[in-house]
Amino acid sequence: MTYDTLLYAHSGGVTAVINATAAAVIDAARRQGGRVGRVLAAHRGIGGVLREDLIDTAALDTAALERLARTPGGAFGSCRFDLPRDDGGVVMDRLFAVFDAHRVGWLLYNGGNGSMDAVARLQAEARRRGHPLVCVGVPKTVDNDIVGTDCCPGFGSAAKYVATSMLEAGLDIASMVGAKGSVFVMEVMGRNTGWLAAATALAAGGDPDRAPHIVLVPEASFDEAAFLARVQAVTERLGHCTVTVSEGIRGADGGPLMEKSRDARGYVQLGGAGLAVARLIHERLGYKFHWAIPDYMQRSAGHWLSATDREQAQAVGLAAVDYALAGQGGMMPGIRRLQAEPYAWEIEAVDTALIANLERKLPSEFIAADGLHVTAAACEYIRPLIMGEVTQSVRAGLPDYRPCGWAKVAVRLPPWAG
Amino acid sequence: MTYDTLLYAHSGGVTAVINATAAAVIDAARRQGGRVGRVLAAHRGIGGVLREDLIDTAALDTAALERLARTPGGAFGSCRFDLPRDDGGVVMDRLFAVFDAHRVGWLLYNGGNGSMDAVARLQAEARRRGHPLVCVGVPKTVDNDIVGTDCCPGFGSAAKYVATSMLEAGLDIASMVGAKGSVFVMEVMGRNTGWLAAATALAAGGDPDRAPHIVLVPEASFDEAAFLARVQAVTERLGHCTVTVSEGIRGADGGPLMEKSRDARGYVQLGGAGLAVARLIHERLGYKFHWAIPDYMQRSAGHWLSATDREQAQAVGLAAVDYALAGQGGMMPGIRRLQAEPYAWEIEAVDTALIANLERKLPSEFIAADGLHVTAAACEYIRPLIMGEVTQSVRAGLPDYRPCGWAKVAVRLPPWAG
Repeated sequence: MTYDTLLYAHSGGVTAVINATAAAVIDAARRQGGRVGRVLAAHRGIGGVLREDLIDTAALDTAALERLARTPGGAFGSCRFDLPRDDGGVVMDRLFAVFDAHRVGWLLYNGGNGSMDAVARLQAEARRRGHPLVCVGVPKTVDNDIVGTDCCPGFGSAAKYVATSMLEAGLDIASMVGAKGSVFVMEVMGRNTGWLAAATALAAGGDPDRAPHIVLVPEASFDEAAFLARVQAVTERLGHCTVTVSEGIRGADGGPLMEKSRDARGYVQLGGAGLAVARLIHERLGYKFHWAIPDYMQRSAGHWLSATDREQAQAVGLAAVDYALAGQGGMMPGIRRLQAEPYAWEIEAVDTALIANLERKLPSEFIAADGLHVTAAACEYIRPLIMGEVTQSVRAGLPDYRPCGWAKVAVRLPPWAG
Repeated sequence: MTYDTLLYAHSGGVTAVINATAAAVIDAARRQGGRVGRVLAAHRGIGGVLREDLIDTAALDTAALERLARTPGGAFGSCRFDLPRDDGGVVMDRLFAVFDAHRVGWLLYNGGNGSMDAVARLQAEARRRGHPLVCVGVPKTVDNDIVGTDCCPGFGSAAKYVATSMLEAGLDIASMVGAKGSVFVMEVMGRNTGWLAAATALAAGGDPDRAPHIVLVPEASFDEAAFLARVQAVTERLGHCTVTVSEGIRGADGGPLMEKSRDARGYVQLGGAGLAVARLIHERLGYKFHWAIPDYMQRSAGHWLSATDREQAQAVGLAAVDYALAGQGGMMPGIRRLQAEPYAWEIEAVDTALIANLERKLPSEFIAADGLHVTAAACEYIRPLIMGEVTQSVRAGLPDYRPCGWAKVAVRLPPWAG
């Protein structure tokens, strides 16, 4: 029995360019001189593998792949699922049963830190079983927190979007200065790391009078007094103040600053850190406040992609197929920065066993000494990643994203009871 | 003394294309064969007129005007200020003193419903005084609620932005369907009218399975039971549900649905309607929720303008100068729809005295009978307004918005004590 099926799966939160990776994987797999028999995609991630819910990508022609490559979100679906360690091997057995049933010789697993742990463990399990499976990781995350790679596909586009949003909202609030002072707070993604918050600093271009005036990241503990003093100083100087808040900022006690409040029924609700910060300013300083939470919008803005990010998303897909076919199991294509200006990069193989579950935080030299902004070094690092635009196909005034039709693969195993 | 100064002022919330109107006004005024001596702009709206805080636009060359025309926010500033009716004429006297001091013969006032009231009153006052001032209104508002015009400059771009955002976020959440069901709520602007909420329906393209699945507008009172039943039905069918909420939706009692909650200090805070709706769903149905509030981002997204909207923003600016020079005081250029498909429109003069302070709401034929969505007729009305894209100049990966330098006009009057 030949294991000539390549299986591709998404894991965790999707990005604006994750489908560009998927399209690159499918395209590259088709160009292997017939070595790859079928290219399947798991429907809704590893859960789809467990359920034997698999998509045959053969029906996607060149035009469909091209459309796929410029559509945000994960066209094949994704899920959040950690490979259990304490289930007596039940999940692992099922996964390998599905691999066997569909002759999966190559598994490409697209995800973040947790997914790279899964890649390392699946490859180790295959070796232990003497199974031919080659499992390769493909990096992606808007959080930019994977170790072993200079940056992560998905981050550059989200960074470009949040920086543009802060630039534009900053022009808006600067127009509306009133007698009382007003504040605009934007909460961006980043539970443990401040990479996206740092990206908004690109909007200021180093000018202390331009938005954002303050950037709060989880790596610096939130100093309420210093923060309020800065808000007041900026507002007294300019009439307004703009603040970027990472969703995961923490107080001096290390606990998250998410707002805790009670609704009419006395039910405790977690609000966002951005709202908590906006309300704090209003309460203490009396300023008017507006706040924005782009939420999913920041990681799905296909209408305003970074061309650099998209190129890297495609490159890791192509490289992952190469690694798989070369038998480089347990590896992940990382991005290595060769030089900053002009930006040059290359793909290099990274051993997932060495990086799994680690988390890359903002280094201290990227954070201002007072913890209220990021440094020029942070901006220099991020700038190349947002460069270049992608002209989207438009239909009736909106980006022409069209779901691609697909055929499901016939099931061969009993249903998964897990 | 010749009243050959044209004075231009912004009022109220700004838009992504309000500067395009400003640039068109300045350009048109310069082409009047020398009839217009100076073109001034009020710094921060009518408040700038009262403070005699005026900008001389002569320093803006063609390149600067071109940059101005593609920069969101109000480059000259704006403010919220209602002409008082009970101050014994103190404000009116001061305004006319400033007009006299700077020989203002034409005042172009760019704003919404309240501003058109000011235009009508200023023109009536000029007639009463035998003053040569010709005051002309220029429409703008992302809320699209000015009476007498088929649509309002600023709305089309905001509509394109929120529809695109819902389209993209809808693809994201559809990728992440889990076992429990998940909901995405986006709160858009619209205190009293649901035009922007209705615009998000363009993302679905008439497909009931695509985002947004529910659209809540202030014109339909919020029926909690019917709403929750629909959320449940959609989530059971698709695994997820997306909801657009106008910030100003109202309950059966007519009161706003803004969330009321108490913070740790027992301080009552108003949250957004979107958050209130998201929490309601979570509490009653147990679904995971994400919510987004684009806030200022939706009215300042210069990176994703509607070309139609920008063209109309320029056209009302040009027409307003024509009206002013022709002595058509108290008028506002409105947009008349000639046909829907292909879209054709023209500018027509509207008497501000007949429309001042009125508010155009969504007509009942634009709202679904159950109050949980908008109709195909609403989409047909909005679609032409989001058509066309504007290629922005980009610098270092971000839109190249650069503040234009300007010269202030020397003051000639004692300071304003108001």
